[in-house]
Amino acid sequence: MSGPLPSWNPGRTRTAILDFVADAADQVAPEERVAVFDNDGTLWCEKPMPIELGFILERLAAMAADDASLQERQPWKAAHEHDHGWLGGAITKHYHGDDADVKVLLGGVLQAFAGWTVDDYASAAFAFLHEARHPTLGRAFADCGYRPMVELLHHLEDNGFTTYIASGGDRDFMRPVTAAIYGIPPERVVGSTNALRYRDHEHGGSLVYAAEPDVFDDGPVKPVRIWSRVGRRPLVAVGNSNGDLEMLRFADSPARRGLQLLVLHDDAEREFAYTAGAERALAEADAKGWPVISVKDDWGTVFAEAAV
Amino acid sequence: MSGPLPSWNPGRTRTAILDFVADAADQVAPEERVAVFDNDGTLWCEKPMPIELGFILERLAAMAADDASLQERQPWKAAHEHDHGWLGGAITKHYHGDDADVKVLLGGVLQAFAGWTVDDYASAAFAFLHEARHPTLGRAFADCGYRPMVELLHHLEDNGFTTYIASGGDRDFMRPVTAAIYGIPPERVVGSTNALRYRDHEHGGSLVYAAEPDVFDDGPVKPVRIWSRVGRRPLVAVGNSNGDLEMLRFADSPARRGLQLLVLHDDAEREFAYTAGAERALAEADAKGWPVISVKDDWGTVFAEAAV
Repeated sequence: MSGPLPSWNPGRTRTAILDFVADAADQVAPEERVAVFDNDGTLWCEKPMPIELGFILERLAAMAADDASLQERQPWKAAHEHDHGWLGGAITKHYHGDDADVKVLLGGVLQAFAGWTVDDYASAAFAFLHEARHPTLGRAFADCGYRPMVELLHHLEDNGFTTYIASGGDRDFMRPVTAAIYGIPPERVVGSTNALRYRDHEHGGSLVYAAEPDVFDDGPVKPVRIWSRVGRRPLVAVGNSNGDLEMLRFADSPARRGLQLLVLHDDAEREFAYTAGAERALAEADAKGWPVISVKDDWGTVFAEAAV
Repeated sequence: MSGPLPSWNPGRTRTAILDFVADAADQVAPEERVAVFDNDGTLWCEKPMPIELGFILERLAAMAADDASLQERQPWKAAHEHDHGWLGGAITKHYHGDDADVKVLLGGVLQAFAGWTVDDYASAAFAFLHEARHPTLGRAFADCGYRPMVELLHHLEDNGFTTYIASGGDRDFMRPVTAAIYGIPPERVVGSTNALRYRDHEHGGSLVYAAEPDVFDDGPVKPVRIWSRVGRRPLVAVGNSNGDLEMLRFADSPARRGLQLLVLHDDAEREFAYTAGAERALAEADAKGWPVISVKDDWGTVFAEAAV
């Protein structure tokens, strides 16, 4: 298919997107054309576990290898034993409102990079995303972006939109690769982060992660962080889970309707099939008539050719 | 004078700026050309008191007019009695390390706009900045930007820099006017803010200020917030007070020297003459050879023609 969104199958979803974008380009001032995208499960693959979790596990396993006392303590124990079940379960439980395991996990995450500079962390994230490989898709994590979504980002930019990532994932984990994968530079990546401290030294000082949380960019926090970073209400919001609901709602305004898109993972063959953690979002999309993007039906191609 | 920086007098400061910018345009990748500017006392006038304080006082006075019990309580008392001495003193003491009065003041500020939506706050800030007039300069606050600084912002943009405001002042107070005054859109305004909460409603929800602080963007917090928002170290940093010191230092890096500029307010005739709160910054500029911008000597014109 030629023209915009070539990897999308013809149908109601693609038509709804093209129509909305054409109308916005005609009727909405350019500075108001803001589009926000969740990342995990929306722009790139999040199964069998979020990509960032693999990075953290690698670090936790390295810590446990250095310190045997950590080998019996979660989440180091799960990392040391490659117990992905415990870890994936923590995320699923979170989306069902049970944060007990996710708190244990986050406690470990806080320790994992405490004392690291932002520069060292960015280098490690970049290396992981290019060197580690997805367990079933046969490609580096940096090649796990959805090709139809990259096309959508470009189509929006071509029509005067400014695109942002608004993710529950760690902001500084994504930043080293978002420009290359999505064309989104670091200043347009919104996400979670641990607290940072400035440490003076002769050559400009360093920013160092503290072992304490700062922002967990999920649920009702997403609209707050979008406002903090952008200073505008978005016109387009794209997500795939319950954690995106408030962000999706925030794309409406008293003056006009926005475009809300929800990715439905229903393609076990080419990607993964799951709705855990997306139940409320799917119900609201149904009730409000938000277009649901079926991976199986709406996407002719899921991933770009991997660099291998 | 024709060419760049026409309101600047020829001399070492102007030459240092032009040379650095020309070298950067030649040698530094465009995405690394990031320039950060403090706002109060750097881009616009901050005397006899910070502009934002006038806005807050107006609101506190209105609250005290509605509720007599507030008339005997600071900071409402000072607002009600137009006691600018108490208020200016709180800021000066802060820069000398004594935060007692500034805490009382901030306690009032937290109450002043609690429950307001970001939209109502933006409208009120916009109206104040255009309608209220500076007590001695004979112009609206929106016309109190320094013309040489606006020229510097434009010169940097013309040379591929991206400019940001990194201010201790309230982010959402500045945002409604920074595009018109400086050419800096809301997404490039970094500053302090109170906590925000998302409140659902049928038409996209609202963001509402809570009566609690979130970020006070001053001193060592400035580099942290610049990183959070930009994801890069700046190459140029411009300030005028001790609260800008860490931001200025952060413009150096192990790989290269940045450009640090410090505004010296030494022109009682055309603007104001003061160094209170800038002593450490001036000493470090002297020790490190950072160019100091003398309002009196370096600026041929201080303000643009006011719209009146």
